[in-house]
Amino acid sequence: MSHAGAPSAILLIHCPDRKGIVISVTEFIYKNGGNILHLAQHVDPEQGVFFMRIEWDLADFAIPRDKIGEYFHTLVGARFDMRWQLHFTAEVPRMALFVSRLPHCFYDILARYESGEWRVEIPLVISNHPDMGPVAERLGIDFHHLPVTADNKAEQEARQLELLAGHDIDFIVLARYMQILSDDFIAHYPQRIINIHHSFLPAFPGARPYHSAHARGVKVIGATSHYVTAELDAGPIIEQDVVRVSHEDAVEDLIRKGRDLEKIVLARAVWHHLRRAVLVYGNRTIVF
Amino acid sequence: MSHAGAPSAILLIHCPDRKGIVISVTEFIYKNGGNILHLAQHVDPEQGVFFMRIEWDLADFAIPRDKIGEYFHTLVGARFDMRWQLHFTAEVPRMALFVSRLPHCFYDILARYESGEWRVEIPLVISNHPDMGPVAERLGIDFHHLPVTADNKAEQEARQLELLAGHDIDFIVLARYMQILSDDFIAHYPQRIINIHHSFLPAFPGARPYHSAHARGVKVIGATSHYVTAELDAGPIIEQDVVRVSHEDAVEDLIRKGRDLEKIVLARAVWHHLRRAVLVYGNRTIVF
Amino acid sequence: MSHAGAPSAILLIHCPDRKGIVISVTEFIYKNGGNILHLAQHVDPEQGVFFMRIEWDLADFAIPRDKIGEYFHTLVGARFDMRWQLHFTAEVPRMALFVSRLPHCFYDILARYESGEWRVEIPLVISNHPDMGPVAERLGIDFHHLPVTADNKAEQEARQLELLAGHDIDFIVLARYMQILSDDFIAHYPQRIINIHHSFLPAFPGARPYHSAHARGVKVIGATSHYVTAELDAGPIIEQDVVRVSHEDAVEDLIRKGRDLEKIVLARAVWHHLRRAVLVYGNRTIVF
Amino acid sequence: MSHAGAPSAILLIHCPDRKGIVISVTEFIYKNGGNILHLAQHVDPEQGVFFMRIEWDLADFAIPRDKIGEYFHTLVGARFDMRWQLHFTAEVPRMALFVSRLPHCFYDILARYESGEWRVEIPLVISNHPDMGPVAERLGIDFHHLPVTADNKAEQEARQLELLAGHDIDFIVLARYMQILSDDFIAHYPQRIINIHHSFLPAFPGARPYHSAHARGVKVIGATSHYVTAELDAGPIIEQDVVRVSHEDAVEDLIRKGRDLEKIVLARAVWHHLRRAVLVYGNRTIVF
Repeated sequence: MSHAGAPSAILLIHCPDRKGIVISVTEFIYKNGGNILHLAQHVDPEQGVFFMRIEWDLADFAIPRDKIGEYFHTLVGARFDMRWQLHFTAEVPRMALFVSRLPHCFYDILARYESGEWRVEIPLVISNHPDMGPVAERLGIDFHHLPVTADNKAEQEARQLELLAGHDIDFIVLARYMQILSDDFIAHYPQRIINIHHSFLPAFPGARPYHSAHARGVKVIGATSHYVTAELDAGPIIEQDVVRVSHEDAVEDLIRKGRDLEKIVLARAVWHHLRRAVLVYGNRTIVF
Repeated sequence: MSHAGAPSAILLIHCPDRKGIVISVTEFIYKNGGNILHLAQHVDPEQGVFFMRIEWDLADFAIPRDKIGEYFHTLVGARFDMRWQLHFTAEVPRMALFVSRLPHCFYDILARYESGEWRVEIPLVISNHPDMGPVAERLGIDFHHLPVTADNKAEQEARQLELLAGHDIDFIVLARYMQILSDDFIAHYPQRIINIHHSFLPAFPGARPYHSAHARGVKVIGATSHYVTAELDAGPIIEQDVVRVSHEDAVEDLIRKGRDLEKIVLARAVWHHLRRAVLVYGNRTIVF
Repeated sequence: MSHAGAPSAILLIHCPDRKGIVISVTEFIYKNGGNILHLAQHVDPEQGVFFMRIEWDLADFAIPRDKIGEYFHTLVGARFDMRWQLHFTAEVPRMALFVSRLPHCFYDILARYESGEWRVEIPLVISNHPDMGPVAERLGIDFHHLPVTADNKAEQEARQLELLAGHDIDFIVLARYMQILSDDFIAHYPQRIINIHHSFLPAFPGARPYHSAHARGVKVIGATSHYVTAELDAGPIIEQDVVRVSHEDAVEDLIRKGRDLEKIVLARAVWHHLRRAVLVYGNRTIVF
Repeated sequence: MSHAGAPSAILLIHCPDRKGIVISVTEFIYKNGGNILHLAQHVDPEQGVFFMRIEWDLADFAIPRDKIGEYFHTLVGARFDMRWQLHFTAEVPRMALFVSRLPHCFYDILARYESGEWRVEIPLVISNHPDMGPVAERLGIDFHHLPVTADNKAEQEARQLELLAGHDIDFIVLARYMQILSDDFIAHYPQRIINIHHSFLPAFPGARPYHSAHARGVKVIGATSHYVTAELDAGPIIEQDVVRVSHEDAVEDLIRKGRDLEKIVLARAVWHHLRRAVLVYGNRTIVF
């Protein structure tokens, strides 16, 4: 499951299900000298769709890295009408963090970053508040305070997109960022913006879910990490988890217990994204 | 937590919070020779409400059982404007089971009954299908097949109420009973009808929650046991739990995993009810 | 994950890891007209072992069922030095239940059997106590009361083996059977005897684990289902789970909570075994 | 459950169980003008021991803070042969952190500290490695690098005790500190040193538990936070939790999953300690 060691390539594939897909993909790798490290596939029998994640060692692979995509498409992908992504473990993904005032997810991600837990670069933090600036800067991360109002939202998003492009960002993590992104902004990073919502969606979407959970008297609370789509809190779910609560827990206790849950659930989702394990189909994820 | 052993009494209390409640209740018991076995209290600071469950040994208690309620009300309850229930562990509660065709919760409860796991009597099973008749009857339980249609619903509920009264039933467990009870029926057994719903409410109320959960692509599914109120799937929650699922789980796998969850969650709720641990306030439960 | 629908074949494979295994196996299936339904593989990089479970539709498969094993061995297995098992979903496995006096796992399995939850036949129940006889017999299952003492153990095990053979039993489930099986007996059903132990092994092996867990003051208790080997409670683990406990839980509460855990954990292990998802290597399981 | 708001007092009590304890304690508070905020009690029927945690508002309490202990002992404690501790929520506990090289628990606690999640002071960090020095110092915490060898251990512990005394430390948290403390050192802080062990004790005590868990093929891994006693990894357990693993998880995956578990379990234990909710009796904890 880890990517220490020799460089490898990862293909994420989906296509209409029919005979011969597995053999064609594995043959492409085998015939060209690749050693398969991981292979996972899944068929959705209702939709008739085939999904696959395959990782192979590049050490003796005959096709040069910059030609693999072209060759795969020509020899295999086109024949099966595949949608595919190709990743290389040697390429370190570049993440931008968006944060507001609640620091727990932000601190948690930076601690993982500082200790080298993930293979990732974090060159950019954007916030609508100035509070987290010193924390970002002590790790040498570029910090931008871009307060957002109804009036300046379009302008600030333009600035954000500029910064993201300037830092060559691959994907964005919203670490309890308390602003709703516009559809236009989201369209620039499809399936590349990861949010953490503090409820077990689809229960309690929107604002103040812990207050709603307390009012409803639930016995478990949850957190949900998902890709951001145009519809609020309705994107494809990557990871969820829950923790038990009781009548003894006031709203502030739900918030306290929820903090730990949110940071762990978000970190797991980012981990799956980083290891190129997530495929989105419709509004669901396959997490290989 | 168990009620083996000497007979004891249990008081479930709630009242406006103010000084002196705990001391007044404990004094009532202590001065009359009772030994406190369990005491749990809870204050809802937002609502300003005090809740208590207290259990004491009746062995040397000076007040006879049939006078305890009266004395308590006069000496303590009235002064603090208390709502209270008094239970005796020597009295075995009488449960009726409502079931349709899905047998897992039904079998699970009967297995607990047959093996003496719970202190309960189950003299009556009512079903809108005939299938479970032989299972009930082999344990000597009175079984009534009362099919329900839009036309005969009022009539059949009248018959059900008659049977419940005739068997001196204290509370009803809906073991995946697939009929909606009328408001009038529910009003006969307030906070005494326990249902199991196959989702983590408030997500996915109503019909076919596993199909909805699958379509939404959740990573956990749940089950919720609650007291039945006039509003469908919206009554006070007694117990909830969840189990992880993944993209590999088709709807039929959610149903399979859910079955085990439903029976365990329902059994825990019934257990809390049987040991007189549940207090309802507004739409929330305190489970001591 | 389910086996409703058309007949299919399942191969469970392990062998030394090297290039070309996946392609050789998938080619064997594809070239002979099989459609792959599920494929899961795993490599243990430390041990250098490759594991695979592959299931394919037999509808258009060119090789007749009774020749598949021979052909596979000749064309693929021998070349890669494979150990493999071949199963057909059309063949319904035959299970024997061993039980003593604690009924919860036994009742739970019989309820699944009676309701058709599993594709299994249970023609035989063996017990060292007479108590469960009537329960088995009301489902038409052959029940044998074989009390075991130090003196008659060898003799009774001989009788058990005779009964197992007579009923053409594929695998045995010990549903809280409180006798230790001899090494000789176990050797007749390698990786085909499933036990449930009432602790999260390797903590608290042997007798009275709930008492030990209580004395140690643990905050979670567990249950472990494993294949039986010559060393007590040390066989390959198929499934484990836990439940939270607190200081409020006396030993009898641990036993009560543990009962529900045991029956669910055992049922999950049996489910994995029934769907031919478990591979044993050394003292570990791969559960595909 | 939280201590925001008005100053209050907390009594943690245990004594031989007999009639009249609850009333005597509550009378002491009530008669002197205290308003009970929380009351939890527990009886261990096997040992015949009574436990209580009671918290009351000091706003109108007649006895001055520095006399409460004396009065309580004279009027109540002595009569029932009580062991008790008295705490005031206005007093902020002072914690020392011991750390080695693994940073995840350390970072996690400092993030909670920096964001004000806990009411605690952390004036001192001690480490046998220099690595975490800059991290402590950027928060203005006194950092001491005290490398420990077999030869200098007694001397370094003497230095540690001096530092602890000099900073007026109430309790110590071992955030993956990889040195075994001497019995003498431990005796200075009885039930005031909190450790995190990376297994679900009593399984896998000692070194390299993730390697042992992997070798045994468990399906859940755990973490245990406990008070340190003279016997290694055998002290009273405050909190435990687990996470599922599978055959796909190599040792390094167990370590990765375990990191998140360790930091959450340790944080929960520290939280319980900080809110004065933990009573130790024998080798078990009551966590009210």
